[in-house]
Amino acid sequence: MNLATICSALQTLREQKPLVVNLTNYVVMNNSANALLAVGASPIMAHSRAEMQEMMSFAGALVINIGTLDEVWIERMAWAIECANRAGKVVVLDPVGCGATTLRTDTARRFASLAERLIVRGNASEIIALAGAASQSKGVDALDTSDAALTAAKQLVEQYQAQVVISGATDYVVGIDATYALHNGHPMMTQVTGTGCSLSAITGAFAAIGETSGAAAAAIMGVAGELAAENVTGPGSLQVALLDALYQLDEATLTSRLKLTTL
Amino acid sequence: MNLATICSALQTLREQKPLVVNLTNYVVMNNSANALLAVGASPIMAHSRAEMQEMMSFAGALVINIGTLDEVWIERMAWAIECANRAGKVVVLDPVGCGATTLRTDTARRFASLAERLIVRGNASEIIALAGAASQSKGVDALDTSDAALTAAKQLVEQYQAQVVISGATDYVVGIDATYALHNGHPMMTQVTGTGCSLSAITGAFAAIGETSGAAAAAIMGVAGELAAENVTGPGSLQVALLDALYQLDEATLTSRLKLTTL
Amino acid sequence: MNLATICSALQTLREQKPLVVNLTNYVVMNNSANALLAVGASPIMAHSRAEMQEMMSFAGALVINIGTLDEVWIERMAWAIECANRAGKVVVLDPVGCGATTLRTDTARRFASLAERLIVRGNASEIIALAGAASQSKGVDALDTSDAALTAAKQLVEQYQAQVVISGATDYVVGIDATYALHNGHPMMTQVTGTGCSLSAITGAFAAIGETSGAAAAAIMGVAGELAAENVTGPGSLQVALLDALYQLDEATLTSRLKLTTL
Repeated sequence: MNLATICSALQTLREQKPLVVNLTNYVVMNNSANALLAVGASPIMAHSRAEMQEMMSFAGALVINIGTLDEVWIERMAWAIECANRAGKVVVLDPVGCGATTLRTDTARRFASLAERLIVRGNASEIIALAGAASQSKGVDALDTSDAALTAAKQLVEQYQAQVVISGATDYVVGIDATYALHNGHPMMTQVTGTGCSLSAITGAFAAIGETSGAAAAAIMGVAGELAAENVTGPGSLQVALLDALYQLDEATLTSRLKLTTL
Repeated sequence: MNLATICSALQTLREQKPLVVNLTNYVVMNNSANALLAVGASPIMAHSRAEMQEMMSFAGALVINIGTLDEVWIERMAWAIECANRAGKVVVLDPVGCGATTLRTDTARRFASLAERLIVRGNASEIIALAGAASQSKGVDALDTSDAALTAAKQLVEQYQAQVVISGATDYVVGIDATYALHNGHPMMTQVTGTGCSLSAITGAFAAIGETSGAAAAAIMGVAGELAAENVTGPGSLQVALLDALYQLDEATLTSRLKLTTL
Repeated sequence: MNLATICSALQTLREQKPLVVNLTNYVVMNNSANALLAVGASPIMAHSRAEMQEMMSFAGALVINIGTLDEVWIERMAWAIECANRAGKVVVLDPVGCGATTLRTDTARRFASLAERLIVRGNASEIIALAGAASQSKGVDALDTSDAALTAAKQLVEQYQAQVVISGATDYVVGIDATYALHNGHPMMTQVTGTGCSLSAITGAFAAIGETSGAAAAAIMGVAGELAAENVTGPGSLQVALLDALYQLDEATLTSRLKLTTL
């Protein structure tokens, strides 16, 4: 993964306009749909068991986000993952609040186990919590957050044959063969709800066109967020400007802005 | 329906501030409520069976949008349509994704049959799918999308005694006595989620004050969208500017901008 | 409560970043989360019974908003209030549409009775309806809306040992010992959905840091809304500017703008 492959993936995405099925939380549904549209993909927000198998047969990828979880949605999400598995589609799991409550931790682990082709996108504490006991037994407390999250991510990669994206001041993209660090983005992005959820959704769009590392989505969201934040007066206008930046993003801007390093 | 009747309807709407009950999808609830407020109506987003009959007794119209459908909401929507029927109120049906899955096609047809006073607002493929087999048997494949959708719309008008609005680069308003074409709007509106849903909601607001052709809502949304798109940098700012344009829209602007033709 | 205590409360809120659990309506979830983030708090939108007790143990306050009510959410909300009671946390109740339907009136009263530490935030008609029969027997019809709402609020204060905030052209903050009037805000705020809901959410954030009068939240939302409305072209841009204003609000602006009087 490098600048050229990221630019190429973005071009392919815009040409193919892949369909991405999202079972996400109530808070960010509008933003995630708009982020997918802005980057050039086609969002479907759907959750009924009665149409999921049919829908996954023509969709490109599935995004599961547990931000506003309940017992009804858990079973809908599990069924959607099974449908994605049958159709051979990638599942992007956004384990919102994993570690904050037992329900979220247990559900996130269940979904990670269930998905056959998995990408996990979370923040450091969610990734650490998802990796769980084994990670703690390695003495996580002694490490700083980034190191602990990287250790946890590598464990998840191995345990689930997954790709893992850790969002933060620096984003990390962790896979079997390589780990990348992305140094774009802006601190104000954490004061807008759903920027991480939008990244997960866009990760699904790239997975749908075969870019399953998670790096292209993280790169594009980081650069777009950074650009957007430079000309705004607060988080309200950042939310708006971020969609505009995703829409306008081109190869020249990516080339001049992207800070991607291989670890 | 002409410029004068559309201007008059908008003025009446702003004076009467009709209450519009919306059972819509999770993605656009905020946008639809804000679009109704911006144009001068009063939105209520509600879905409980326990209050629907009471609510339809004092509301002006019902908007049903199947964008995030499930078995629980289907029955709530069916009940709301029955309540609207009893109260003699118009039902605006937005058959989101009709044709994409069996569930959506079947549900949209069920709701179209159930509503006694019906306006349908969808895009060409949704209208064609809603009209279904009969439309196909007339050799739809040989026609271009607009022609196929117009044929389907005319069939729906006859079958359900409905008014039909087809959204697209050109919008069509199809009724028993007349068909209108509207040439306003902007391509970027398709890259913001929920612009069609907002049109359906506003169609409900006009129906509540007696403008049941669907033409006024389509005219106003088309002109507002066109105005909004001229000064924005992407779909994020378009979503914001569209609400401002709906709020500011006046007779002078409608007069200078509206491109309405009778077919 | 005065300018100094409000400025001090805002500073404490930004330092402590209290966690506020919200069971709110589908329409405003995004806005309420963003309003909490903009002012400096940490929102959690959650509703599952399976995690509520755990969540209320580490959260600072609970916000209950009945805007899109149904039988499933009613029980979830009741359980959340019980969890808040056990954890000794304040419940902010936003009785959306109380008085409009029997379901909403009954549910709002049930929740008001259930909460042990209660702040109610509503508009005049909701407060009057929540206070109900006793208020009417005092001859409410003879009074103007503000007087009727103040009478109703005082009754609620006594009945539920609650603090009551009435939103309107003038906001009133009514407690056992004192009543304040706030003369900030802007009429256009009523044409954006969810500004009242955001105020309720922020009221929860202040309650979580011990400012349980409701005055700080009302003051900050009024000043931020007034500032935001001065430079916008309609309700779309107001929604955005309001978040920016909440984010930027500082002591100097509060000092120059706040119009707080003790009644």
